[in-house]
Amino acid sequence: MRTLIKGGTVLSATGASAADVLVEDEKVAAVAAPGVFETADEVLDASGKYVLPGGIDAHTHMEMPFGGTHSVDTFTTGTEAAAWGGTTTIIDFAVQSKGTTLTATLDKWHEKADGNCAIDYGFHMIVSDVNDTTLKDMETCVDAGVSSFKMFMAYPGVFYSTDGEILRAMQKATETGSTIMMHAENGIAIDELVAQALASGRTGPVEHGLTRPSILEGEATARAIALAKVTGAPLYIVHLSAAEALAAVAAARTEGQNVFAETCPQYLYLSIEDLARPDFEGAKYVASPPLREKRHQADLWRGLRTNNLSVVSTDHCPFCFKDQKELGRGDFSRIPNGMPGVEHRMDLLHQGVVAGEISLARWVEACSTTPARMFGLYPRKGVIAPGSDADIVIYDPAARQTLSAETHHMNVDYSAYEGFEITGKVETVLSRGKVVVSPSGFGGGRGHGKFLARDLCQYLS
Amino acid sequence: MRTLIKGGTVLSATGASAADVLVEDEKVAAVAAPGVFETADEVLDASGKYVLPGGIDAHTHMEMPFGGTHSVDTFTTGTEAAAWGGTTTIIDFAVQSKGTTLTATLDKWHEKADGNCAIDYGFHMIVSDVNDTTLKDMETCVDAGVSSFKMFMAYPGVFYSTDGEILRAMQKATETGSTIMMHAENGIAIDELVAQALASGRTGPVEHGLTRPSILEGEATARAIALAKVTGAPLYIVHLSAAEALAAVAAARTEGQNVFAETCPQYLYLSIEDLARPDFEGAKYVASPPLREKRHQADLWRGLRTNNLSVVSTDHCPFCFKDQKELGRGDFSRIPNGMPGVEHRMDLLHQGVVAGEISLARWVEACSTTPARMFGLYPRKGVIAPGSDADIVIYDPAARQTLSAETHHMNVDYSAYEGFEITGKVETVLSRGKVVVSPSGFGGGRGHGKFLARDLCQYLS
Amino acid sequence: MRTLIKGGTVLSATGASAADVLVEDEKVAAVAAPGVFETADEVLDASGKYVLPGGIDAHTHMEMPFGGTHSVDTFTTGTEAAAWGGTTTIIDFAVQSKGTTLTATLDKWHEKADGNCAIDYGFHMIVSDVNDTTLKDMETCVDAGVSSFKMFMAYPGVFYSTDGEILRAMQKATETGSTIMMHAENGIAIDELVAQALASGRTGPVEHGLTRPSILEGEATARAIALAKVTGAPLYIVHLSAAEALAAVAAARTEGQNVFAETCPQYLYLSIEDLARPDFEGAKYVASPPLREKRHQADLWRGLRTNNLSVVSTDHCPFCFKDQKELGRGDFSRIPNGMPGVEHRMDLLHQGVVAGEISLARWVEACSTTPARMFGLYPRKGVIAPGSDADIVIYDPAARQTLSAETHHMNVDYSAYEGFEITGKVETVLSRGKVVVSPSGFGGGRGHGKFLARDLCQYLS
Amino acid sequence: MRTLIKGGTVLSATGASAADVLVEDEKVAAVAAPGVFETADEVLDASGKYVLPGGIDAHTHMEMPFGGTHSVDTFTTGTEAAAWGGTTTIIDFAVQSKGTTLTATLDKWHEKADGNCAIDYGFHMIVSDVNDTTLKDMETCVDAGVSSFKMFMAYPGVFYSTDGEILRAMQKATETGSTIMMHAENGIAIDELVAQALASGRTGPVEHGLTRPSILEGEATARAIALAKVTGAPLYIVHLSAAEALAAVAAARTEGQNVFAETCPQYLYLSIEDLARPDFEGAKYVASPPLREKRHQADLWRGLRTNNLSVVSTDHCPFCFKDQKELGRGDFSRIPNGMPGVEHRMDLLHQGVVAGEISLARWVEACSTTPARMFGLYPRKGVIAPGSDADIVIYDPAARQTLSAETHHMNVDYSAYEGFEITGKVETVLSRGKVVVSPSGFGGGRGHGKFLARDLCQYLS
Repeated sequence: MRTLIKGGTVLSATGASAADVLVEDEKVAAVAAPGVFETADEVLDASGKYVLPGGIDAHTHMEMPFGGTHSVDTFTTGTEAAAWGGTTTIIDFAVQSKGTTLTATLDKWHEKADGNCAIDYGFHMIVSDVNDTTLKDMETCVDAGVSSFKMFMAYPGVFYSTDGEILRAMQKATETGSTIMMHAENGIAIDELVAQALASGRTGPVEHGLTRPSILEGEATARAIALAKVTGAPLYIVHLSAAEALAAVAAARTEGQNVFAETCPQYLYLSIEDLARPDFEGAKYVASPPLREKRHQADLWRGLRTNNLSVVSTDHCPFCFKDQKELGRGDFSRIPNGMPGVEHRMDLLHQGVVAGEISLARWVEACSTTPARMFGLYPRKGVIAPGSDADIVIYDPAARQTLSAETHHMNVDYSAYEGFEITGKVETVLSRGKVVVSPSGFGGGRGHGKFLARDLCQYLS
Repeated sequence: MRTLIKGGTVLSATGASAADVLVEDEKVAAVAAPGVFETADEVLDASGKYVLPGGIDAHTHMEMPFGGTHSVDTFTTGTEAAAWGGTTTIIDFAVQSKGTTLTATLDKWHEKADGNCAIDYGFHMIVSDVNDTTLKDMETCVDAGVSSFKMFMAYPGVFYSTDGEILRAMQKATETGSTIMMHAENGIAIDELVAQALASGRTGPVEHGLTRPSILEGEATARAIALAKVTGAPLYIVHLSAAEALAAVAAARTEGQNVFAETCPQYLYLSIEDLARPDFEGAKYVASPPLREKRHQADLWRGLRTNNLSVVSTDHCPFCFKDQKELGRGDFSRIPNGMPGVEHRMDLLHQGVVAGEISLARWVEACSTTPARMFGLYPRKGVIAPGSDADIVIYDPAARQTLSAETHHMNVDYSAYEGFEITGKVETVLSRGKVVVSPSGFGGGRGHGKFLARDLCQYLS
Repeated sequence: MRTLIKGGTVLSATGASAADVLVEDEKVAAVAAPGVFETADEVLDASGKYVLPGGIDAHTHMEMPFGGTHSVDTFTTGTEAAAWGGTTTIIDFAVQSKGTTLTATLDKWHEKADGNCAIDYGFHMIVSDVNDTTLKDMETCVDAGVSSFKMFMAYPGVFYSTDGEILRAMQKATETGSTIMMHAENGIAIDELVAQALASGRTGPVEHGLTRPSILEGEATARAIALAKVTGAPLYIVHLSAAEALAAVAAARTEGQNVFAETCPQYLYLSIEDLARPDFEGAKYVASPPLREKRHQADLWRGLRTNNLSVVSTDHCPFCFKDQKELGRGDFSRIPNGMPGVEHRMDLLHQGVVAGEISLARWVEACSTTPARMFGLYPRKGVIAPGSDADIVIYDPAARQTLSAETHHMNVDYSAYEGFEITGKVETVLSRGKVVVSPSGFGGGRGHGKFLARDLCQYLS
Repeated sequence: MRTLIKGGTVLSATGASAADVLVEDEKVAAVAAPGVFETADEVLDASGKYVLPGGIDAHTHMEMPFGGTHSVDTFTTGTEAAAWGGTTTIIDFAVQSKGTTLTATLDKWHEKADGNCAIDYGFHMIVSDVNDTTLKDMETCVDAGVSSFKMFMAYPGVFYSTDGEILRAMQKATETGSTIMMHAENGIAIDELVAQALASGRTGPVEHGLTRPSILEGEATARAIALAKVTGAPLYIVHLSAAEALAAVAAARTEGQNVFAETCPQYLYLSIEDLARPDFEGAKYVASPPLREKRHQADLWRGLRTNNLSVVSTDHCPFCFKDQKELGRGDFSRIPNGMPGVEHRMDLLHQGVVAGEISLARWVEACSTTPARMFGLYPRKGVIAPGSDADIVIYDPAARQTLSAETHHMNVDYSAYEGFEITGKVETVLSRGKVVVSPSGFGGGRGHGKFLARDLCQYLS
């Protein structure tokens, strides 16, 4: 089965070329000048469109247990929504509970995802219980293609690890070449501020932001970098939201340390003003780290340009407003943390291109190529090159759309970007050669997506 | 005419893929999985080899007039030597003399190069005489594909521009979107130190290094950055050699300013100890900025990894030891400034890959893709992609060679790297589809290389 | 002749004590607990008042030739005004003209001042003509008690020195232990901006500020620091006005380099908005560096607290609005540069105490003790201690006054602080034991002030 | 009773004056020029000697319970030793145990010290158990003259406070204007490294240093600064030993934050090489933070010059080698942490004067005046001024002595500086007007020293 994508502008992390792409079964067979291939079993006309490697969302939480409830997108609904938005790979988080092993956790997450995904997927492992077994199992995970381990400096009593536990896990990461991903907020200090807010009757959603000052994200980021320096571990800061944290990352990178960071669209476009929306609407915007003062946004865009922020992920972790977010009425600390976003990352970042914040090449790099290289998927993913998986997006840069819960495909009852007007729109999406999204609708299916055993980070020095 | 490069590992700035490359006439027609194309008019076997975009040396000085003599490589000998070393594009410097116009200068350099180059070439313009005509002519130059202008904070009385002149040229660069390239050394202070050294009888080649302290490169770099900030001009620091200068560049880049820098192999591998070689041998290593204390080398490698040094060029400017370098016996200030290097950049940087200093992808990026993007040549150059010029190097990563003036192709009587043992060697080189270097020898010719009208820098924000 | 100052609070650079001060002739004889001395030839009641060492204004320009005119305060009028404001020592600048020697210059300035000053005075030397004789004469100056040499990176064609000349003078400063004072603005770049403004018809006083961007003060400051590092010279940045310059000073000081800086009251209280006053009123505020955007003020107060700004001087250089400032109507570059201020420094900085910006001890330190130590006058000046000159101010912290040209004693037709309401006022001033200002009026005289031969800076490491 | 100290050079934090000091009973009555006072009840000849305010050691641990034993100097022996060395005030630490209140702790420490001290003393409070009562009691402590609270980021299970507890205490410090003192080492991570060392059989004293990397002191220092920034609390870093921590302090101070730091003589003169001494001798040098690589020493001296290190204290906490230090044979973690030092601080820092590292004025400032101002004792202590306590040292700058356990007065069986040759020696010491040390021996007594109720820090902005 051969598919020819004709007439488009093929994008990569370094630029654009007018070229056709020949797909054979699941793989890219060739990238060729117009005319080299005349036809194929199927021909997709990409005239006037961008042809880019499918997006990779390196930070999603499908069906994630949190505080007695679950994030509402299943691996099926979440990956379908991702596909609609031009994302063809997700890396989701398997979540170790206290008292369970990493291997059992991984088995469980394989069960959840296997046969249910519309697109390919990998796993990071959340480490919540550092002990000898866990450390030994990290080796097994790496061998099994799970080469990155997320830890939390926030959420004491749940995911929180002490600095000693982080140190031990980092030593194992150094030993195995794997990466420690860090949720870097000083949760111990934050929980004190939260308790004080509640005790004094400050209970609304905006307090979620006010009790998590950006200084404490900067602090934790710097601490994680220090621990990584002591141990030699590669470090990847997830969902960086604050100028102070960016400064810490930039300083470490200038020094040549193996430190990387991602940000998310919500930190680029939304702010604490959204958390302060009346009528408990702010609850829709509760995630951690919290949305920040607007002044941080320009810093984050700059960080994205300078590559101190290397990746844009979504931290997709949707909870419905009704019944879920509402659990926190009268106590913001009970609002499930998380926002929907997996569907709109490519669109929202394309707005950065339209606005002149980033170049086309940087769009592809931050949303696809770099996550592939960062998490050991390149060149299978992240590039349109012979032998690569034919995960390809045909994107119409001139189309217009308005984001809305009315029309989105995520299984959640609100949109954080309700009413946002977007220039650009996904037209067609191929996942391993199969057209899963096209102008005629969704053509994929839950059985299509396969697990991706990942190699190590390709940026280490 | 179709040529098929089969069985190799195709490299790009982001990684490697097993792929064949189909060349049709002067262009890349396709990059394809093995087997897609079976044969062609000519087939080159690249099994076990790297297939990479030809190197781009963005800083050469062929036939450059300097102090009454000329650098000894002509456009013919220099470009042939470049080709031997896997470099398929040079960007040379047209040199405005005081009292002549930029347009006349450009005409003159076209005359020198036209019909004489073995590979494609572009020009930067050296601005020595800032006046209203020169500023107006900068617009003409940009229209004529010369979109970068080099200025000197060193060499008072020759190339030196005052800060006021630099400011004016930068304003014009901002207006036209072109780039100011800067030789950043405080030449006014340095010339005082030089005069003091000579007055006190310190006359040997090592004094060249001792009178040009790295602090004064750092100072000038910071000053150029400040002037660029005042004017908004894109700035590219040439031949950065000093940790202090790197720190200034890194700080500006972290702030998001359009500041870029290159270093050269000599600063990565050689040191002031070479300048101190006895019997006037040190004169072979006289160039500006000077070779530094060894401690700077690790910083430069780090800068190369962090992309604060984005490009590796050679500053190729060869003078023979005999009769030319010897002009400075008894007075180091009369030693012609410059070293040969155009032939060995790809090999020397491949040593960085072998030694683990940089990745394969970074090698390609710093030596080819980034210079192409930086100087408006991408995707014509700097990538193996459909429609790109078929400037391709087949590189044998396992071959061994020893560098020597005995065997090199540059027209100069010594090698700065005499006796260096190198792992890796160019096997075959295509320039716009023509095999110019192959195991059977040089197959190119002086008429082959064409002038490249360049666009603007593609990294600006 | 014994004078006893009773009942006051004696201030020093480290704090306050309830104590009496016994003066014998020109010197402090004792500082004693109340009651130790009952009476004396004269008793001054300081109950409820501060008793502090007389202010030292380390930066004044009396009778300074500038652009065909002179600053309007003579050594007589200027030192009387200083005394009125609680300043008992000035260090004025002898100004070398091109073609004259430092020794001749010093002789000339001695002539100007000798017998004409109401308070003691010293000289710095402005070096405008660096040559072998000048360098040799620097030694003579140091021996003659002039141990600091001011140079200009601004005012090309007038006071400007090239970086090479600065380097030479710095080498001599290192050799003699003397200090280089620097007017740090990039005058070469600024003059280009000035010419452009005038050429485009932007001629009003505010253009003085707009053509001297703070980045160019930061640049020059960093450059001076670099040259000082190369040569080992002590460096003192005069009239620092910009956050960028402060950052450069702070970085060097953290590194332990012998770098110091002063700011002036005008930069703490006034801004470019004053330069933009209508009806050419802005001309009253023309000085260099220019008044800055208000955002710099908080940085300067912070710098004063952190001791990165060690001294507050005035750069007193008054020109009348009428006939003098008016020379620049239609061409801001012809407005004589300078503002009056010698009379109000102590009062204006006391406002910083009232406002909580600085402590009482810091007020004394920055205005008296540190300038004494910085310029080799301590313990003769800058402290109330046995054996020190009895330069003493009795200051009423509760008095109120309004600054105005109507009431000030400077020989200039406007006040830069017209209408400022001040808490605190000088009541009595002793200069070397003589009451020169008292509630009954001025009791000093032009013959009283003596030249102070100064030692070297006492802060060097 | 009047005592006259004649003929000496009186030192202060800003310089030196030839002056006599008249003492009346417990207070300084006057500082006077030679000749003003001829005689008194007692006359001390200070010709050729320095007369300086008595040293203030702001960090001592007398009779401190630690791991089942006590530091061996009692308040009696420790304060006598202090007096011998020219220290006339100590601020010791009252140590809250878990489960006891601050007020009970303070009572207990008053009991220990009352009537037993040879010199005046104050208390800081160590907070080990943050709870509502403790926080409330902080107010009581401030009212009782204990205005500084030390917390530990090290020693989990003993003194360690969590970041949440630190945050709460800092909020109370902000509210009361008191100061948080911080032992800044990441004890959680360190304890993991200690456990690993022991588990792998690395048990000797040098492991104490190797398991406490300087990065983890830098980290904790930066974290404490971040928490102080969130809460607005004044912060004082105790016993800073590492370049990384100094950099964090310097950055915060440049930003104007109320952050201060002390270092100790052992970090200026000793190194990890002492910890590596054979035959368990290294145990004598076990204290936390540990002695560092020698490269840190130059940074600390520089920090002392730049005032980023404002105070030199001793952290005097002596344990005998025999029976106490020996508890850790075979397990370095059981070696009692602490070194003797209270006697030799003034002498050791005078060596810095002799060596040109610091000035005479800086010696007095760092050892006496600044601790007085920092901890609310000025002008009662820290200066020789009318009304101040007559705590005065007559120091012979030319005397020679050799430090040794044979001759020292501390109640401990070894000297950390055994054999150090010192230029300079205390001759006479007055404590509140009483001669406690003189050439004829110790003249003080345990009943003499009184408790000092302290005010707040005088450096806050």
